[in-house]
Amino acid sequence: MDLFDAIRGRRSCRSFLPDPVKEADLEKILEAGTWAPSPLNAQSWEFIVITNQGLREKIFSEADRCRQWAIEKSGWKWLSRYQVDFLKAVPVLIAVIGDPTKSGVDTFQEEGGVAYQHACAAAVQNMQLAAYALGYSTLWFTLFDKNAMRTVLGVPQNKVPLVLLCLGKPSGEIPQTARKDFKEKTTFLR
Amino acid sequence: MDLFDAIRGRRSCRSFLPDPVKEADLEKILEAGTWAPSPLNAQSWEFIVITNQGLREKIFSEADRCRQWAIEKSGWKWLSRYQVDFLKAVPVLIAVIGDPTKSGVDTFQEEGGVAYQHACAAAVQNMQLAAYALGYSTLWFTLFDKNAMRTVLGVPQNKVPLVLLCLGKPSGEIPQTARKDFKEKTTFLR
Repeated sequence: MDLFDAIRGRRSCRSFLPDPVKEADLEKILEAGTWAPSPLNAQSWEFIVITNQGLREKIFSEADRCRQWAIEKSGWKWLSRYQVDFLKAVPVLIAVIGDPTKSGVDTFQEEGGVAYQHACAAAVQNMQLAAYALGYSTLWFTLFDKNAMRTVLGVPQNKVPLVLLCLGKPSGEIPQTARKDFKEKTTFLR
Repeated sequence: MDLFDAIRGRRSCRSFLPDPVKEADLEKILEAGTWAPSPLNAQSWEFIVITNQGLREKIFSEADRCRQWAIEKSGWKWLSRYQVDFLKAVPVLIAVIGDPTKSGVDTFQEEGGVAYQHACAAAVQNMQLAAYALGYSTLWFTLFDKNAMRTVLGVPQNKVPLVLLCLGKPSGEIPQTARKDFKEKTTFLR
């Protein structure tokens, strides 16, 4: 697929078919993640591929608990209409785990390093584009408690669960969300 | 260009030709940035396109000061061999500015929201891939002091300069940096 078609066509999906993801496709998607840039090429990411039904149920419960917390904390009423049941239905979840020791020079900043997180985000974007090019849809899901997710996935305290990337075939057409024109977002200093 | 060719072919460039970036290409690159996902589609980024020579000199001075700081702080000797003169030579710098108020539910986390930064990182990755597909090279540059960069670029205190994306034609062949096989980075929970 043409790069610009992938960038323009990718959409966030919240309704998946149960169809499995082909192993060869999954491997291409994970490999695309590894070609992201990272500070000092430290490759600050680790991936956990979850297909196990029991685990996905646990992840759903945790996310739903976190959703309840977010509704109370934010006061955003629309959040109570937002359901996370797709976490049980989606055939594959890729947990993206960041390693804070792989943050390059950023490590020495007063507020601590975050560059490892940016590298992980770039890897997620590569995986989203790759998935779309192979006929799948994705969702960059982050509504979870990091410590709870460490427990569910067996992630040590010194690593950080950053994203649960939902991956599968979309159950229907996904409407495009609009974007502001780049000109509204850009200042030129000539 | 094929998506996977872009993902595999993109390399971090530290030596640029003075050739300008075509306006139409620059627009395609910026637009590619805007198609990144963001929390609640808040489009957490702003872009500042810098071509002004005086400003690029100032940015160079600031980055060089930050490099000196990083050498002292880290004790990494190789950093003194790493020069940032390419900041003067590169024809275009795109400063990516994040808006912390556009972080979605993440805003309510105890440690504060970082999702706006992840969205900006995804936008940077889109721009890097788009630039590469159009025959340019890029560098995801972050060795600067945020407050100093606010002053140089006129960014208000409530927004965060996250990345200076260097953009231009590469001055020669860029060697590929190796990646660990995705299998070394992945755990499967079936």
